[in-house]
Amino acid sequence: MDETCVVERNLKLVIEFDGSRFHGSQRQAPEKEPTVQGVMEESLSRLLGHEAHIAFSGRTDAGVHASGQVVSFKTTSPIPTERIPMAFGNMLPGEIRILSAQEVPAEFHARFSARGRTYRYLILLGSSVFWQDRAWQVEGKLDLDSMQKAASLLIGEHDFSSWRAAGCTAHSPVREILDLTVEPLKMGSFKLVAITTTGTGFLYKMVRNLVGTLVKVGQGFLTPQDVGELLARRDRTLAPPTAPAWGLYLMQVYY
Amino acid sequence: MDETCVVERNLKLVIEFDGSRFHGSQRQAPEKEPTVQGVMEESLSRLLGHEAHIAFSGRTDAGVHASGQVVSFKTTSPIPTERIPMAFGNMLPGEIRILSAQEVPAEFHARFSARGRTYRYLILLGSSVFWQDRAWQVEGKLDLDSMQKAASLLIGEHDFSSWRAAGCTAHSPVREILDLTVEPLKMGSFKLVAITTTGTGFLYKMVRNLVGTLVKVGQGFLTPQDVGELLARRDRTLAPPTAPAWGLYLMQVYY
Repeated sequence: MDETCVVERNLKLVIEFDGSRFHGSQRQAPEKEPTVQGVMEESLSRLLGHEAHIAFSGRTDAGVHASGQVVSFKTTSPIPTERIPMAFGNMLPGEIRILSAQEVPAEFHARFSARGRTYRYLILLGSSVFWQDRAWQVEGKLDLDSMQKAASLLIGEHDFSSWRAAGCTAHSPVREILDLTVEPLKMGSFKLVAITTTGTGFLYKMVRNLVGTLVKVGQGFLTPQDVGELLARRDRTLAPPTAPAWGLYLMQVYY
Repeated sequence: MDETCVVERNLKLVIEFDGSRFHGSQRQAPEKEPTVQGVMEESLSRLLGHEAHIAFSGRTDAGVHASGQVVSFKTTSPIPTERIPMAFGNMLPGEIRILSAQEVPAEFHARFSARGRTYRYLILLGSSVFWQDRAWQVEGKLDLDSMQKAASLLIGEHDFSSWRAAGCTAHSPVREILDLTVEPLKMGSFKLVAITTTGTGFLYKMVRNLVGTLVKVGQGFLTPQDVGELLARRDRTLAPPTAPAWGLYLMQVYY
């Protein structure tokens, strides 16, 4: 029976995308508006000559960007792995770029093998047309010291119910934040604040919810102690609103 | 006859726009694709309650951005000048922002009163989806010292025929460049090169044509001496191609 040997490879790609023109990363059925997954699967199927299913390390919402999203897929195509970034990249719109391609063991799965993620959230102090889809534009000053103090209280393993979105389907609200920093970031003449966090996993919209709270601390509406209190209360309705999607960047996924 | 006194004011606005979604700054007749002028005149006419004609300091091509474009218009509307940035800004798409509004003498005209302009051209070393409409993405290294040497030869009053676009309708090809610098610019993790020039006036596509030549110098295809030679030859067909529109920013207009 098995005279012809079809080799199936498992491939891992690191990709960058500008999320502003996509309706999120995850394919919808039926696909009404373009998603990163939908656009990629269509091109990849043409490249490989067979239907391709791409697993993402995690879902990102409409407007969220990625500098280091990881995806994986299986293929029986003979295309050399090192040719994929260029060949696949040329078929994709300018908003998606393949940074690298690598063959991985059959058991690797972009989502289930992930052990941690780093997200970055950008806040523009002021406003500019050049940042409208790339950062949350906040008028006035932010007290970064207070924000960092509040951030430090959130590091560690906690029940993050106060920053868990209503639609979150995770079994447990407990997550571990390994690092959470609030830093000024100068980009040419623009003054930004970068909130960067690494964790073993995050609840749905947890990073944007935490950013919404930290900005209220920076504006003086909440103290760092209030944030400790919010953490203890485990009640989403007590915490400030979610920060907008367009400031969020998935930076790196760890395996 | 003239019992009611209608005061006509002349107003000057400084505006910022992201040119990537516009078909240039100048209104076309008939308007097939949105232009900055077309979009602004439509909203301004509604705000003022009379038809508004906006004069731009100069035309910018499709894809070109502005951090400090200047426009002027006359109005009989009683709206307070200081309310215009907010009221007008709220009517405009997110790609256009009013930075300031100021009443100016009746004889002021955004274009005819202009005495000088500063443009900046951004080159991204490498590639990124986040810069596709905002900078020229150039792979490999650029020798900035050679570029600066070549740039220095262009400062002063010269016949710039070698960098004059075919469609340029100016009477004379002589222009005066007051300053032209080539500098590295770090924006977060992105490495850019900023070419900034100030002049009393520029020929059509002159800045982008000069950038196209300076990049060839940076890549080693031309020496600074070759650029001096090109200047002397006054022949557009001898000089390298035009740099793309999306790296160019009109930074400031002087009066």
